[in-house]
Amino acid sequence: MQNFVYKNPTKIIFGKDTIGEIGKEIKAKGIDKVLMIYGKGSILKNGVYDKVIASLKRNGILHVEVKGVKSNPILSKVKEAIEVGKREGVQGILAVGGGSVYDTSKITSIGHYYNGDVWDFYEGKAKPQKALPIFGVLTISATGSEMNSGAVITNEEDNKKWGYGSPLLFPKVSIIDPSIQSTLPKKQTANTAIDTMSHVFELYFDGTNDVDIMREYSEGIIRTAMKHVKVLLNNPNNYESRAQLAWGATLALNGSNGTGRTFGDWSSHNIEHSLSALYDISHGEGLAIVFPAWMRYVYKGDMNVFERFSEKIFNITEGSKEEKILKGIDSLKEFYKSINAPTSLKEIGIKEDELENIAENAAMLEPLGTFKKLYKDDILEILKMAYE
Amino acid sequence: MQNFVYKNPTKIIFGKDTIGEIGKEIKAKGIDKVLMIYGKGSILKNGVYDKVIASLKRNGILHVEVKGVKSNPILSKVKEAIEVGKREGVQGILAVGGGSVYDTSKITSIGHYYNGDVWDFYEGKAKPQKALPIFGVLTISATGSEMNSGAVITNEEDNKKWGYGSPLLFPKVSIIDPSIQSTLPKKQTANTAIDTMSHVFELYFDGTNDVDIMREYSEGIIRTAMKHVKVLLNNPNNYESRAQLAWGATLALNGSNGTGRTFGDWSSHNIEHSLSALYDISHGEGLAIVFPAWMRYVYKGDMNVFERFSEKIFNITEGSKEEKILKGIDSLKEFYKSINAPTSLKEIGIKEDELENIAENAAMLEPLGTFKKLYKDDILEILKMAYE
Repeated sequence: MQNFVYKNPTKIIFGKDTIGEIGKEIKAKGIDKVLMIYGKGSILKNGVYDKVIASLKRNGILHVEVKGVKSNPILSKVKEAIEVGKREGVQGILAVGGGSVYDTSKITSIGHYYNGDVWDFYEGKAKPQKALPIFGVLTISATGSEMNSGAVITNEEDNKKWGYGSPLLFPKVSIIDPSIQSTLPKKQTANTAIDTMSHVFELYFDGTNDVDIMREYSEGIIRTAMKHVKVLLNNPNNYESRAQLAWGATLALNGSNGTGRTFGDWSSHNIEHSLSALYDISHGEGLAIVFPAWMRYVYKGDMNVFERFSEKIFNITEGSKEEKILKGIDSLKEFYKSINAPTSLKEIGIKEDELENIAENAAMLEPLGTFKKLYKDDILEILKMAYE
Repeated sequence: MQNFVYKNPTKIIFGKDTIGEIGKEIKAKGIDKVLMIYGKGSILKNGVYDKVIASLKRNGILHVEVKGVKSNPILSKVKEAIEVGKREGVQGILAVGGGSVYDTSKITSIGHYYNGDVWDFYEGKAKPQKALPIFGVLTISATGSEMNSGAVITNEEDNKKWGYGSPLLFPKVSIIDPSIQSTLPKKQTANTAIDTMSHVFELYFDGTNDVDIMREYSEGIIRTAMKHVKVLLNNPNNYESRAQLAWGATLALNGSNGTGRTFGDWSSHNIEHSLSALYDISHGEGLAIVFPAWMRYVYKGDMNVFERFSEKIFNITEGSKEEKILKGIDSLKEFYKSINAPTSLKEIGIKEDELENIAENAAMLEPLGTFKKLYKDDILEILKMAYE
């Protein structure tokens, strides 16, 4: 078990009919005016917008809005939000949306106190000293951003979809009302599960020696996500399943799942980031395609953990160690197919001669990973394995 | 799944050779003088005392000491600590020890700003408004107090061993170096596992409808504790097992394991508190005796969860539902025997005609529990079942 420091100060308010609490929480921090950031407007249709605005009004909190954050959120939108926030003299940020809105809000919060280009933080050219407090109402569970200190932004000019983390980025308060996710398209519900599972995989397959306590924790989240996403694809209104999938998504990446391990492998995520930086696909779809290929490419580096994975997740107990592993990876692909996720690059319209370009993009951050260090040629091999 | 609010602000520094960090952490909060509270002096023998003092000195932090906290910590010691802290004008508390030292420190921290009798907090006659910041170096894992907001104190005059909780009681920083626990007597290592498992049981068997995500989380901690305590009883120096048992003990009761459930049942704990208020036995021993009896008394109230417990913890898959349940409870008792814990009241020298008195003590807080509400007659029945 690795030494670690763990601290997560985010307050979570979880459950049905909790959105109306947001104004009181903001008020409690002595804030009178917030910059409210949201996406393309689904909150206007599902009632979340009205609930948030009513709560702000009840508590006498003024707000200005920046809307139109898209999935795979982009740097130009962050810059727009920073400009509005500075001009309007806001004292806090209110994220109302999914991971993209949260991530946009997080970088806006540190950009508020920085005079240069916020991409400097990503490039390691500057370190933030201060942040506006971040409050949030989560509308799509997937990234865990509601309870962690990371933010992934796409620099669309340079085709860089990169992650950045700082303790300044923990939200003060996040409200998670799973019931509002019952109107999500099925594809997004499936993506919640894929994203959650993939976050766990990054930590589970990190090349650290066995740490039972965290392996158990991880396996519990994976089994829960797999079970309850199936329920939801048949019955989107099942609150119990919605709540368990939502809380699993948060627990997968709030830091506790990483304790005692390394910080995770993250090469599948980095490869996927190149996919969604270059193509208009969702992060969940990309992960469903990349992860099984990555597993197949690297499993020989630690057969024990892959064997355990096959046993604990898919109850595969027969055959040689390697047979069990390969059957486990196949089972994962089958599971993704069963929830209608794509499992090959070809399937989403990418051409074989484009793989080189994707590999080159991902290799900007080489070497990727901790389980096995990956260079451009490795990445290309994985993309080839993910092709069909 | 129940609605919940979750926030845990404690910073954990975990791992080998981390004790020397304590001075820096205290200094970082602008504190110059602390009240250091510890137990009967094992820290003088195992080197922890010297490491802590050296770290304080390096950081220019003055300290005064209150020592002699015993297990099942008592109110008079809390009052002594409060008096010293006030007289000396300390700005923070430094707990160096196990749960008893932490709990003493916590109540001292709120007593510092209260002019009445701190037992008022336990009786609900007063609410603390402010607390000294608490820092800690954990030397025995078991209670989870290092990362939660509760404190159990025995009012020795009234024979009341009661719990109290307030968000003010979260430690600011806790250092957990599992390697220093390798010199613990075997009995205390066994108690770590029993205490950890019992905390999980209280949350697992709380009468809430199935919440897979938390059941999985709980089962992972139970299996880990059971596996690694066995390793440690044979090889006390196995760092990996020591670390996993220690972190499991923290995770069992840092609040996250309770999310989405009720706040737990806690009747076995309350019954045990009466045992250790009246007799000089350890909390872990008392729990090993009480819990299986409680299970046998209440299991009909939710056969599904007890069946699941038998399956997931002891791999019992054959027989009728009730047979599986009873076999699971027997297996738990067998497990406790296998780690040399007592499993009957008789075994620890309690006489049958004393059960009435114990039941009466526990019934001060009646009705106990959420899974099944227990009154004095129920408690007496459970004690009878725990007798042989």
